[in-house]
Formats: sequence, structure tokens, C-alpha cells
Amino acid sequence: MTDPTSDILESFENPYPGRDYVIETVAPEFTSVCPKTGQPDFGTLTITYIADRKCFELKSLKLYLQQYRDHGAFYEQVTNLILDHLVGVIEPRWIRIQADFTPRGGLRTSVTVEHGHQPD
Amino acid sequence: MTDPTSDILESFENPYPGRDYVIETVAPEFTSVCPKTGQPDFGTLTITYIADRKCFELKSLKLYLQQYRDHGAFYEQVTNLILDHLVGVIEPRWIRIQADFTPRGGLRTSVTVEHGHQPD
Amino acid sequence: MTDPTSDILESFENPYPGRDYVIETVAPEFTSVCPKTGQPDFGTLTITYIADRKCFELKSLKLYLQQYRDHGAFYEQVTNLILDHLVGVIEPRWIRIQADFTPRGGLRTSVTVEHGHQPD
Amino acid sequence: MTDPTSDILESFENPYPGRDYVIETVAPEFTSVCPKTGQPDFGTLTITYIADRKCFELKSLKLYLQQYRDHGAFYEQVTNLILDHLVGVIEPRWIRIQADFTPRGGLRTSVTVEHGHQPD
Amino acid sequence: MTDPTSDILESFENPYPGRDYVIETVAPEFTSVCPKTGQPDFGTLTITYIADRKCFELKSLKLYLQQYRDHGAFYEQVTNLILDHLVGVIEPRWIRIQADFTPRGGLRTSVTVEHGHQPD
Amino acid sequence: MTDPTSDILESFENPYPGRDYVIETVAPEFTSVCPKTGQPDFGTLTITYIADRKCFELKSLKLYLQQYRDHGAFYEQVTNLILDHLVGVIEPRWIRIQADFTPRGGLRTSVTVEHGHQPD
Amino acid sequence: MTDPTSDILESFENPYPGRDYVIETVAPEFTSVCPKTGQPDFGTLTITYIADRKCFELKSLKLYLQQYRDHGAFYEQVTNLILDHLVGVIEPRWIRIQADFTPRGGLRTSVTVEHGHQPD
Amino acid sequence: MTDPTSDILESFENPYPGRDYVIETVAPEFTSVCPKTGQPDFGTLTITYIADRKCFELKSLKLYLQQYRDHGAFYEQVTNLILDHLVGVIEPRWIRIQADFTPRGGLRTSVTVEHGHQPD
Amino acid sequence: MTDPTSDILESFENPYPGRDYVIETVAPEFTSVCPKTGQPDFGTLTITYIADRKCFELKSLKLYLQQYRDHGAFYEQVTNLILDHLVGVIEPRWIRIQADFTPRGGLRTSVTVEHGHQPD
Amino acid sequence: MTDPTSDILESFENPYPGRDYVIETVAPEFTSVCPKTGQPDFGTLTITYIADRKCFELKSLKLYLQQYRDHGAFYEQVTNLILDHLVGVIEPRWIRIQADFTPRGGLRTSVTVEHGHQPD
Repeated sequence: MTDPTSDILESFENPYPGRDYVIETVAPEFTSVCPKTGQPDFGTLTITYIADRKCFELKSLKLYLQQYRDHGAFYEQVTNLILDHLVGVIEPRWIRIQADFTPRGGLRTSVTVEHGHQPD
Repeated sequence: MTDPTSDILESFENPYPGRDYVIETVAPEFTSVCPKTGQPDFGTLTITYIADRKCFELKSLKLYLQQYRDHGAFYEQVTNLILDHLVGVIEPRWIRIQADFTPRGGLRTSVTVEHGHQPD
Repeated sequence: MTDPTSDILESFENPYPGRDYVIETVAPEFTSVCPKTGQPDFGTLTITYIADRKCFELKSLKLYLQQYRDHGAFYEQVTNLILDHLVGVIEPRWIRIQADFTPRGGLRTSVTVEHGHQPD
Repeated sequence: MTDPTSDILESFENPYPGRDYVIETVAPEFTSVCPKTGQPDFGTLTITYIADRKCFELKSLKLYLQQYRDHGAFYEQVTNLILDHLVGVIEPRWIRIQADFTPRGGLRTSVTVEHGHQPD
Repeated sequence: MTDPTSDILESFENPYPGRDYVIETVAPEFTSVCPKTGQPDFGTLTITYIADRKCFELKSLKLYLQQYRDHGAFYEQVTNLILDHLVGVIEPRWIRIQADFTPRGGLRTSVTVEHGHQPD
Repeated sequence: MTDPTSDILESFENPYPGRDYVIETVAPEFTSVCPKTGQPDFGTLTITYIADRKCFELKSLKLYLQQYRDHGAFYEQVTNLILDHLVGVIEPRWIRIQADFTPRGGLRTSVTVEHGHQPD
Repeated sequence: MTDPTSDILESFENPYPGRDYVIETVAPEFTSVCPKTGQPDFGTLTITYIADRKCFELKSLKLYLQQYRDHGAFYEQVTNLILDHLVGVIEPRWIRIQADFTPRGGLRTSVTVEHGHQPD
Repeated sequence: MTDPTSDILESFENPYPGRDYVIETVAPEFTSVCPKTGQPDFGTLTITYIADRKCFELKSLKLYLQQYRDHGAFYEQVTNLILDHLVGVIEPRWIRIQADFTPRGGLRTSVTVEHGHQPD
Repeated sequence: MTDPTSDILESFENPYPGRDYVIETVAPEFTSVCPKTGQPDFGTLTITYIADRKCFELKSLKLYLQQYRDHGAFYEQVTNLILDHLVGVIEPRWIRIQADFTPRGGLRTSVTVEHGHQPD
Repeated sequence: MTDPTSDILESFENPYPGRDYVIETVAPEFTSVCPKTGQPDFGTLTITYIADRKCFELKSLKLYLQQYRDHGAFYEQVTNLILDHLVGVIEPRWIRIQADFTPRGGLRTSVTVEHGHQPD
């Protein structure tokens, strides 16, 4: 099992680079594996960003996220890793990822990471 | 198939131009065509604005949006194009368009564009 | 059919004029007539204000709003007109009216007007 | 513009023909055209059936329903026509179609048609 | 003010008379007048029927219901009267009207009337 | 404090006695007193009936229910007592009362009583 | 730790034994212990019954259910045991207990047990 | 009938006076009497505060609010009066009361009063 | 990748075999793979049964369902296969599986299969 | 019964200490005991924090919270005590605990405590 790679992520040129506008993609079918128990984790990723020169091509974003299906990582790691990958590929003006995981042991956890400053 | 045109958009004189007030129109039956797959896309447009001298006549706004029924464009393009058209016709003090598209490939995407500054 | 008049609106003395506090009344049974088609429009009015010396007597407010049942006016006009009437009668420190109309032609529209500045 | 045809509908062999079981597909992005006004109608189709020897292939069902995008027909006609087409292609033991259309003129209408008898 | 009349109701020929199928129209903007207080009443009418030879033309149904806007009648009377009118015009195999009125004096009332027998 | 009496309940003649139809009134502001603790109880009464010769006049029904505001009785008693009173006054073909009380001690209780047989 | 006992359950005489009526008590704060893992389980019990000669006194029912706070038993056992206890104390004409437990390991389980026959 | 008095309100010492923290109590079973009609009013009080040296003892708060059961006062008066009483007893750093009353005459009203400044 | 096997399913002895009672387990984190596209499918399984001599041990049921994570099968096949497996292991008096899959291509599909007869 | 101790809380090294990001864990199965009545209290804890060098290990957090199952403390005490414990173990940059307790005596109470300053 190879590690998730950002090589799979494709982008297209921002059609309106002169304007700050917000793109949000919600991925309710995210799943990875708990590195401690080997059990699958499930969650919803909400990716919100203001593009600079590039936007995410959605089919490649879907395939990128599917790489985590057999990947073992804790909630905090996986959310930060995805942020690093997404930032590396499109260098957005601002981006935020909120990961809401389903309950485990009666506890429900979410992780929210951000890069750059959200314009007012 | 001709491209959508703002010529179809009609306006009427703002009856209270001395007051900044907010008009919001929600269009839950917006549909266009994906230029890549040729499949129809569906979404809800929320158009919020503060008029200057002109307000949108609602029937013409409906007909304007229906022009996209057979128009092929990506989410980012179509939302920005509509903003440009609406701004060109009524030159509002402020306007924002939020386009919420229905899920494709398990991903749900929205685009939010804005022109001018929203008063406090 | 006579035009709606603010003469019907009654007020009582603000029992706590020394304190800025918020009164909100929601009227979900507002109806007027479209001046273009002659068809009835329906909506919900949310009236929020900080009184100065006078508060609205609620029964008279209900009767005032019922005057619009056979009155023909566009959304933008009717909302601003009601604001002017309410301001004229009680001269509040701050008041806001949000009018949410039911869908027509697949479009759902609301108008929000304000008078004075809302305290922080 | 040609009429919708059931030729586009594909099926596959029912993998468990010895068992009565229920398959339900909901299509929330159905759109056709009002033959009277030329305006688009929108609705949600819920197709529920017990297969006999054949099941619907879902991609072809999607393409079949997209044929109505530029087809003009009243609610009652279009729902019955789809039932006839679906019955003709897979000859199910039982099938029901419920079509819930979005409001027009303040009225919201649905049509429910059925073929065969639903087992207890 | 004249009484509501069923003369305004139009019908069209049932396109599939050989099949028992259900048509349901929801009218959430029904309003009449309380004969006792003179105050407006508001409610939602749900009209469900199986046509025999005729179906209701929806625009005429809307106009028919608007006749009650200035008509004074108690909940029980108005609901039964509408049933009688609708039955008289299209003679359906079965029809049911549920009228849900908004609260008055802290009490919320609905009336449900039926004509003919609903097929199993 | 006198006991609640059905003398206060008024009725009017059923305008359509030849037809079995259902009238339902929901009273979400019912309150009585716990005879054990002296604390107020709160609940929602749903009264559903098919009239014979008489229907409840709604204002008198409201006043009848307000008599319980200072009346001490257990849930089971108060619900059955109201049924007896209502039956005594209008002798309906069928009537059902569902009383849903708000939580006490972490437990939420409802009582449902019926008189006569509900037609199919 | 002693086992839960029905000795703690108190009843009072059914005030209307001549009438079949339904009493339902919902206990959303039920908790017991998993005998396998020692971890607490949480759930909502819905107890519905038609009394014969006796009704449950609610405070004693609350205390009875609190006995399970440190009691170890599987879902199927605990639900059936409670049914046996309740039946033993009031011998109802009919009773049903539905126990809805919160998710464990991504699975959400409920158990529904019944004694006697529910009248039509 | 005596007027509501704050004498009934008890407090206990704030266990963590060195820390600004928020306590919120929601009372959904508030009822008073309309001084004009004599009819009962119902509402939900939401009391939010930052304690200084004292916190409200909840049982006494419940009994304090029950005093309004037979007290006649307009919405604006009763909400401000409760604020004055609560402030007088515990002298909080900040307190806000929001009173949401149930609909009367088709209008739904709330009153929000505040004392002191809410920390950022 | 081996096929899912029922060998992994464990059971325990029904603690109350003399009573027909219903056990329902909802598994909202079911995922398999589309055999046509290789893309993951997601869904919620609702398993409802009346045990005869054996009940499902929940942890083994969870592990059994996880076997489908990399298994390719159509909706109709996978639901029927799971039913066959579950029936083979515990031979219940009655069992039903409802599988609700998330939307693909704008269509949302569910499959419901049953074995044995549900007691009245 | 010993007092809850923070010794049971385990942490792991923050994998991304160079980035301010938010971790939120919701514990809907919190239960403690009322010191006055001896009755169990139930609530939902929402713990939100920005880690500095350490993050909470979730299983130990679950076990830590279970210590309160037989612990007697008032709402205000228990919420502040948990905050002190959590702060002592991981010394976060910012942390907030919101405790929402289920209704008692018709009143529903929540307590919100915070340590450090939430970054903008």
C-alpha cells in the first residue's frame, strides 16, 4: 500500500483571477483507517478556498481523496496532510479544511485547519 | 445554441434610492450543462444585492437564468459570468451570488462571488 | 379600495425607556396583491426594533398589516412603505423589517429594510 | 426535437429472480417543459419496483429520463408515459412511480401511478 | 361580494382513464374570513383524488380557491363546500380534502373530508 | 378552586351530518397541576373526532381547557375526564384524545384515550 | 452490586379500568454496562401499555430503571428482563418496550419486545 | 393574588469567581396572564449570565418564575421586571433574558433585555 | 482479494427464544466497490430480524460487513448476498435488509430484501 | 468512590505544532450525580481546543469522563473542574468546554467555560 500522493491532483487555470471568490467542495464519503485499531474511520471533508492562479479539477480531487481508503493515520495527521497537499498543488490565497468524523467510543471529533488569511 | 445574453434582463427604477436595503432572490431551479461530460448540472442560485438606481424585474431574471439550460460551462465560469451580467445591467451598490450545485461523483460544490462592498 | 394608512396604528408608552432592549414581532400571515398580475402575494414579515418612547400595540399592528390584503404593490415598495409608516408612528431608536415572500415563477424573494443604527 | 423513446433503456438479468424484493430509485433532477407556457417544470421521480426477469441498468435509466428535458407534456401525461415505457422494457411484477413537481402558481402537485399489485 | 362558484373550475380529459392513479395538489396559500370576527383565516389545502373522466386544470383551480379570500365561513363549512364543488365538476372516483388552518387562540384545527372510497 | 365543568362547552350544529369527516384540534398550551407535588404540568392535547349532530365551538373549547390551569389531577385521570366531558356534550360518532406531557424526572409520558370506533 | 429488582416498582389503581387506553412513557436517560467490555451503554426506552387494574407510579419507574446504571447485560437480555419485571408488577392487558441504544463500533441497535396483544 | 417577589430567589457562592464563564438556563414552561384579555400567555425564557459572586439556585429560580402563572403583565413589562429582579439578587457581571412568546392573533413576539456588557 | 465469507459471523444463544421480539441493527458506514467503474459505493444497511435460536454477535457483524470494503458487486447482488449469509448463520424466524445507497449520477437507489414472514 | 483524577488522561505529541488548528470532540454520553438529590444528571460536553505541544488521546479522554459517572457535583463545579484538568494535562493555546445538561424541573441549563484566547 503506497502513501497518498498529491501527484494525482489536477488543476485548471482560475477563469477569474482578478476577483476574490470562494469555492467550497464537500466530500461526505471520506474514509481512512485507524492506525491503532486497523478499523475504518469515516467522515465528511469540507474544503473551502479562494483560488489564486489555479482551481481544483473535481474528478482528480475525488480520486486524490480515495487514496486514503486504505491509509492509516490519526484524525489530526490526515487533515493536516491533506491541507499540505492541496496548498502545494494550487497555492490558493486562502484555504480551510474541516474534517467531521463519525462517532467512535461515544465521542465525535472534528479537526479544522487553515492556510493563509480569509479576506474580510 | 446561442450564448446567454444580458439583453433579456429588464430592470425598474429603485423606488427608495435614498436607503440602502437588501433584496435577495433565490432560484432553486437553475440548470446548465457540464462542458466536459455533456450531462446536466443542477443548482440553487442565491442573488443578494443593494440596488443603486435600478432593481431587477423578476420575470426577466427568470428568463435570463433559463438561457443556461443548454449552455455548457464549469461552475466557476457560470457563476462569475452571471455576476458580470447582473452588474452590467443594474450597477448595484453591492451584489453577491452564491451557487450551490447538487452532488456529482460524491462531491458537492458551491461557488460564491461578490461585487462591491457590503455595508456594515 | 383605500390605501393603507398608519392612522390605524396604536402605541403605548415604553415601560422601560432607560434601557435599550429589542422587541421582535413575526407576522407569518401577510398578504398583498401583485399590481402587475392582480394575483395575491404571501409572505412573512419580521419586525425588529428598539423602542424610544413608544411601543406598538399588537392588535393595532395586526389590523394595520391586514390593510394590505387588497393593496397592490411590488415587494420593494410595500416593505419600504411599511417601514416609513412604522417609523412615523413610534420613532424607534432602531428598526428593521425583513419580508420573506413565497415563491413565484420558481423564484423566492425577500426584502430587508432598516432605519437607524443597531446598537452593538 | 424527437419524442422520448424507451429504446435507450437497458436492463440486466435479475440476479435473484426466485425472491420478491424491492428496488427503489429516486431521481430528484427530473425536468420537462410545460406544453402550455413553454416554461420548464422540475420534479422528483421515485420509481419503486419488484423485478421479474430484468432490472434497470441505472446509467441508461438516467439517460432515458434526460430525454424529457426538452419534452412538452402535462404532469399526468408524462408520469403515465414513463410508467408505460418502464413496464414495456422490464415487465416487472409490480412498479409504482411517484412524481412530485415543484410549486407553480402557489400550487404543488404530485402524480402517483402503479402497474401490477404490490405483494403484501 | 358574491359567493364562490364552481363555474370558474375548468377540467381536461383524463389522459389515462383506464388506470386508477392518484393526483395530489397542495395549496398552502388558502385564506378565507372568519364569519364571527371578520378576521382572515389562513390554511393549507391538500386535495387528493383519482380521476374518472376529467382532471382539474390547475390554473382554474387556483382561481377557484382565490374566491374564498373575502368569503366568510367556518372551517367545517368551507372544507365541505369545496368538496361538493370539486365533486360536482369532475365526478372523481375518489377525492379527499385536508384543510390545515393556522393557530387561533392557541388552538390549531384541521378538517378532513372525503367522497367515494379510496381503492386499496 | 372549583372543579372543571363541561357546562362551559358550547357546540354548533354539524353543517354536514350526512358525511363522516374528521375534525382535529391541537391545544399545545394545556397546563394542569400535579396533585402530589403541587407543581404545574404542561402538555399538548390533540382532540380528533367525527361529529354526529354537534361540533365544538372553538372559543368555548379553549375556555373549557383553561379550567385545568389550577386543577390537580394525574395524567391518566385528567385525560379520561376530558374525554368523558367532551363525549357528554357532543356525543360524537368517534373521538380520540392524545395528551403528550413535557418531561418530568427525565421521563416523558403520553396518554391516549378513545370513544367509539374510528371508521375505516 | 445487587441485581435490579422489581420490588422497587410501585403502582396505583387504574382510574378508568373499563376503558382500553394507551399510556406511553419515554425514558431517554437509560444507561447500563456492557458485560463484555465494562463500558457504559446508553439508550432510550419507550414503554407503551394498556393497563388492566394497575398503572405504574412514575417516580418508582424512574428509580427502577436507575438500578441498571451499574448492571452488566447485553441489549437483548436487559430489554426482555425489564419486560418481565414490568409485566410481573402490573399485569397489563398489553405492553411493548422499545430500547434504542446509541451507536457502538459504528452500529446502532434497537430491541423491541411485547407481551399480550395490542387491540386494533 | 400577590405580585411576584424576588425574595423567593436563592443563590449560592460562585465556585470559580476568578473566571468569566457563561451559565444559561432555558425555561420553556413560562406562563403569565394578559392584563387586557385575562387570557393566559405562554413563552420560553432564556436566561444567560456571567456570575460575579453568586449563581442562581435552580429550584428557587423555577419557583420564582412560577409566581407569574397568575400575574397580569404585558410582554415588555414582564421581561424587564424579571431582569430587574434577577440583577438585584445576584448582581451578575452580565445578564441577558430573551422571552419568546407563542403566537397571538397570528403574531409571534419576543423581547430581549440585557444588563451589563457581554465580554468579547 | 478474497470474497466475503459468512465464516467470520458469530452468534450467541437467543436468551428469550420463547418470545418473538425484534432486533434491529443499523450500519451507516457500509461501503463496497462498483464492479463496473471501480469506484467506491457507500450506503446504510438496516438489518431487522426475529431470532430463533441464535442472535448476531455485534462485533462479528461489524467485521463481516467490513469485508465488502474492497468487494465489487452491484447493489442488487450485494444486498441479496448479505441476506443469504445472515440467514445461513442464524436461521432467523424472519429477517429484512434495507440497503440505502448514496446518490450516483443524480440517482439514489435502495434495495430491500426479506426472508420468512414478519409476524403480525 | 474516589474523586475524578486527571492522571488517567493521556496525550500524544501535536503532529503539526507550527500551525494553529482547531480540534473539537463532542461527548454526548456524559453523566454525573446531583450532590443534592443523589439523582443522575446527563449532558453533552463539547470540548474545543487549539493544541500547543500535546493533543488528547481520545480513548483516555473517554475513560477520564467516565470517572464522573458516580461523582456528585453541581453543573458549574463539574464543568470548571474538567477545564482545570484538561488545561493541566495538555496546556493548550486555547480551550473551551460547553456542557449542555438535560432538563430538570422543566429547566434546561448549560455552562460554558474557556481558558486562553481564541485566535481570530
